[in-house]
Amino acid sequence: MKSWEILESEYVVKDRWIGLRADTCRTSHGHVLDPYYVLEYSDWVHVVAFDADFRVLLVRLYRHGVGEFTTEIPSGRIDEGETPIETAKRELLEETGHASDRIIHLGGLTPNAATHTNRSHPLVAYDCRKIAEPNPAGEEEIETLWVEAEELLKWIDDGRFYHSLQIAGILMAFRHAGLLSFVRPPA
Amino acid sequence: MKSWEILESEYVVKDRWIGLRADTCRTSHGHVLDPYYVLEYSDWVHVVAFDADFRVLLVRLYRHGVGEFTTEIPSGRIDEGETPIETAKRELLEETGHASDRIIHLGGLTPNAATHTNRSHPLVAYDCRKIAEPNPAGEEEIETLWVEAEELLKWIDDGRFYHSLQIAGILMAFRHAGLLSFVRPPA
Repeated sequence: MKSWEILESEYVVKDRWIGLRADTCRTSHGHVLDPYYVLEYSDWVHVVAFDADFRVLLVRLYRHGVGEFTTEIPSGRIDEGETPIETAKRELLEETGHASDRIIHLGGLTPNAATHTNRSHPLVAYDCRKIAEPNPAGEEEIETLWVEAEELLKWIDDGRFYHSLQIAGILMAFRHAGLLSFVRPPA
Repeated sequence: MKSWEILESEYVVKDRWIGLRADTCRTSHGHVLDPYYVLEYSDWVHVVAFDADFRVLLVRLYRHGVGEFTTEIPSGRIDEGETPIETAKRELLEETGHASDRIIHLGGLTPNAATHTNRSHPLVAYDCRKIAEPNPAGEEEIETLWVEAEELLKWIDDGRFYHSLQIAGILMAFRHAGLLSFVRPPA
């Protein structure tokens, strides 16, 4: 198996938040794809923030992609020079006024291997406590709420929590916290 | 809390595979975002395909977004007029030559609530069996492999399997199959 070869590449859009690149590619079978679109964003963090009782801190806000108010975990864009843990701390404080002394970076996932060049970083924050009032960025109006860990899994099952990137982070964080265990299938 | 108001909207790109819309939005706080980019794609499916022993069917292929060969579950774009189950059947057959008599649609997630209008549908397929040789679409060169369910969770933990949309589907499918159970945290 071989990688695709990039014959030409140009930016259709390139600004502060997004780059949309149109590549002309030759596949290993010799097919030419013209254009194949690739999205360039900064990396993102998604934070599963537990309190001491393993409740999960959620935010509710308007999301213009889906055009709905969604229930999510705190998240945000990694600024220039920040580590994922620094961004997680900043977003947790800005969006919810909470802090944690134990934030762990669980990996760098692809939001979509076919279309995105950036990474989405799930993190888990333990023993979160409120230290300030939320102070979200200008365009954001954010409510916070707590949910029991088991209840959040039900919300995923029934579609009340439906953000893919964050569900991936919840699986990884719940496993890190020992809240999800593998059950061997019947022989 | 209020939705954002769309003041103006235009397509930067609109073709067969992708629509990139630039909206001018007024947030509930009165901030004007100009432009706010929104991505329009068809819906997608991601299929967790088990054999009778609850091994999971994987595919390996080149993905130009990340520029790497990735290990994934079978997936694809929902064609006009297809249901998610029909697409899952078609992609499973095309990419791997496998079929299942029991495919269950687990929901319609958002790939990214902030940026995408479409949905990503996780499905679970039980008792998959090989009925034909794979016959993937023109640009795709695909290897198939099987992995034990528990091993796949380890691949997620250690970053060998890192596709967010598909990890979300794996959480939902493993819970549907009874392979992941909630462990109550210590009181």
